[in-house]
Amino acid sequence: MTLLFKSDIERHDTWLPALQKHLAGREVRLWPEVGEKADIEYALVWEPPEGFLATLPNLKAIFSIGAGIDHIIADRKRPAHLPVVRMVEDGLTAGMTEFVLMQVLYHHRFMLDFRAQAAQRLWREIPAIPAGDRRVGILGLGVLGRDAAAKLATLGFDVAGWSRTPKEVAGVACYHGAEGLDAMLARSDILVCLLPLTSETRGILNAQLFAKLPRGACLINVGRGAHQVETDILAALDSGQLKEASLDVFETEPLPADSPLWEHPRVVMTPHIASMTVPDTAARSVAENIARIEAGQPPLNVVDFERGY
Amino acid sequence: MTLLFKSDIERHDTWLPALQKHLAGREVRLWPEVGEKADIEYALVWEPPEGFLATLPNLKAIFSIGAGIDHIIADRKRPAHLPVVRMVEDGLTAGMTEFVLMQVLYHHRFMLDFRAQAAQRLWREIPAIPAGDRRVGILGLGVLGRDAAAKLATLGFDVAGWSRTPKEVAGVACYHGAEGLDAMLARSDILVCLLPLTSETRGILNAQLFAKLPRGACLINVGRGAHQVETDILAALDSGQLKEASLDVFETEPLPADSPLWEHPRVVMTPHIASMTVPDTAARSVAENIARIEAGQPPLNVVDFERGY
Ligand SMILES: NC(=O)c1ccc[n+]([C@@H]2O[C@H](COP(=O)([O-])OP(=O)(O)OC[C@H]3O[C@@H](n4cnc5c(N)ncnc54)[C@H](OP(=O)(O)O)[C@@H]3O)[C@@H](O)[C@H]2O)c1
Ligand SMILES: NC(=O)c1ccc[n+]([C@@H]2O[C@H](COP(=O)([O-])OP(=O)(O)OC[C@H]3O[C@@H](n4cnc5c(N)ncnc54)[C@H](OP(=O)(O)O)[C@@H]3O)[C@@H](O)[C@H]2O)c1
Repeated sequence: MTLLFKSDIERHDTWLPALQKHLAGREVRLWPEVGEKADIEYALVWEPPEGFLATLPNLKAIFSIGAGIDHIIADRKRPAHLPVVRMVEDGLTAGMTEFVLMQVLYHHRFMLDFRAQAAQRLWREIPAIPAGDRRVGILGLGVLGRDAAAKLATLGFDVAGWSRTPKEVAGVACYHGAEGLDAMLARSDILVCLLPLTSETRGILNAQLFAKLPRGACLINVGRGAHQVETDILAALDSGQLKEASLDVFETEPLPADSPLWEHPRVVMTPHIASMTVPDTAARSVAENIARIEAGQPPLNVVDFERGY
Repeated sequence: MTLLFKSDIERHDTWLPALQKHLAGREVRLWPEVGEKADIEYALVWEPPEGFLATLPNLKAIFSIGAGIDHIIADRKRPAHLPVVRMVEDGLTAGMTEFVLMQVLYHHRFMLDFRAQAAQRLWREIPAIPAGDRRVGILGLGVLGRDAAAKLATLGFDVAGWSRTPKEVAGVACYHGAEGLDAMLARSDILVCLLPLTSETRGILNAQLFAKLPRGACLINVGRGAHQVETDILAALDSGQLKEASLDVFETEPLPADSPLWEHPRVVMTPHIASMTVPDTAARSVAENIARIEAGQPPLNVVDFERGY
């Protein structure tokens, strides 16, 4: 079997050895050196060019390099009968959890206030709030949301999470469905978005949602830029409904040069780096799933096109 | 028995009810309303005025409001036969651990680089380093250092710690004594100071120590300002020997208005707020120790004047 890898050329250095290690004896081809298309049975891709996957006659499964698969189902010519596999691997999960912990702690400990005070040469304590009195709400209790929620709970935060279907996570108050959302928002001093992008979640981080948070809440979006309405975020920061935001993703990426989000004093911005797939652990996860397919078993973490993630 | 509380007046609101709850039936007096001095058997203090404690004829023990006791032994007229008790309480430990985790993660995830990039409107990924490849070294494996080290290890960091006497902490490489220091420094990409201030540790964060770190290491000082030589920190930041620093404490506090540390682009400064004693848990800890003394047992967490902490 042959696997085709399609990401950015700069990533070949780390990905090729990882794939060769875990897929020992199989051929790995690096886009754009596609070679004989009929050989390719598996594709591991980020943002495949529109229509390209449909030209591979013997493709058996499409693997996403990232946790989200919006970049694959955006290709409307994609061979719709083939399974699309989300990326679930320990390195990606660990990276997201450390990023979410850092951002939650940064807001929790008033770091933007201290930075503003320092700019005024102001030496003043701001009394810390015990973690147990800080209510964190996580939109999305999937692979990433659950791990972040559990680690935040370990640090003593009062954590809740929201999903489509009912969930149970030790130490985390679980809400679900449209009815559960308002209740969770009302108890979220810090709100973290770890949803997949679907028709139901597009634009969810808007003025109407912010109005349901306690006044002065903080927002952390590490989902997708299309989850957020940036004019609504800016207005909520202006009005004080949102105190601060950490944004890793944006409506348009790269963020346009004229966006006020680059250096907004109440925004911590990062260029979509909250978590990256780690080639070694990811290649292992892909190899395990290929072994399942070749043994006639269904692969794990297959996207349900009906629900959109 | 009567306990005298001496901190800042602003703190009376939270401390008085906490002390009254845990010392039910005993009298609590708030400095400067000292009243009849002969009644006072216990003093819970922050920066007692020079010579004052010596005027209390029936004092049995001196409790520090903070973890450090340098502010008490600085009083050379202090009644030297009385036990001085360090503050050990869960709220203080939890607060320090969350602050240390936040600062380590902030440097680990290149947040100052992303901030500098944002100021230039530069959208560029900086590949994250897996936590397991990030070596964190903690100076001091006491109550605070041990808890921070253990939680950092839980997040997957490669953690080491250094103490005066040999220690064992699960998941943490333990070094001790003068011989152990250089070995730990050589493997510390991020160095955290959680030492007490003693004649041996004063000025320890100096050019000579920085030279033993890997080039481009990050420094986090949450011990005491007198641990650090600020001109050496600035020079090491200039030369690149230190990449970044998080400083919560300073040689002079409040930090003088003309210090370059207020807004140095490679320094995260905070006004000595890494962790504060939490009145409720602290009052319980003090009450338990008073009960021990009254039952004829030695109090816990007594300072050893020989070693200085
Ligand atoms: N910024 C970055 O660097 C970065 C990196 C990686 C991932 N991400 C983002 O993180 C997302 C989550 O990844 P994951 O692996 O945790 O996904 P996942 O395992 O598929 O989990 C998705 C979660 O969202 C919930 N959900 C989906 N639609 C919902 C709806 N309409 N209402 C309520 N809950 C809904 C799901 O509910 P159920 O549990 O009921 O199914 C599930 O709990 C990815 O899709 C991607 O967008 C961002
Ligand atoms: N910035 C803030 O807001 C803040 C808040 C609280 C505390 N602090 C600082 O944190 C310090 C530590 O508190 P703690 O409760 O963890 O103290 P602790 O329990 O007394 O622990 C002190 C640690 O430092 C080690 N140590 C002392 N002298 C040493 C030397 N010469 N060489 C090597 N190791 C040495 C001790 O070694 P052994 O284990 O061998 O005894 C011990 O591991 C306090 O003293 C205070 O300065 C700062």
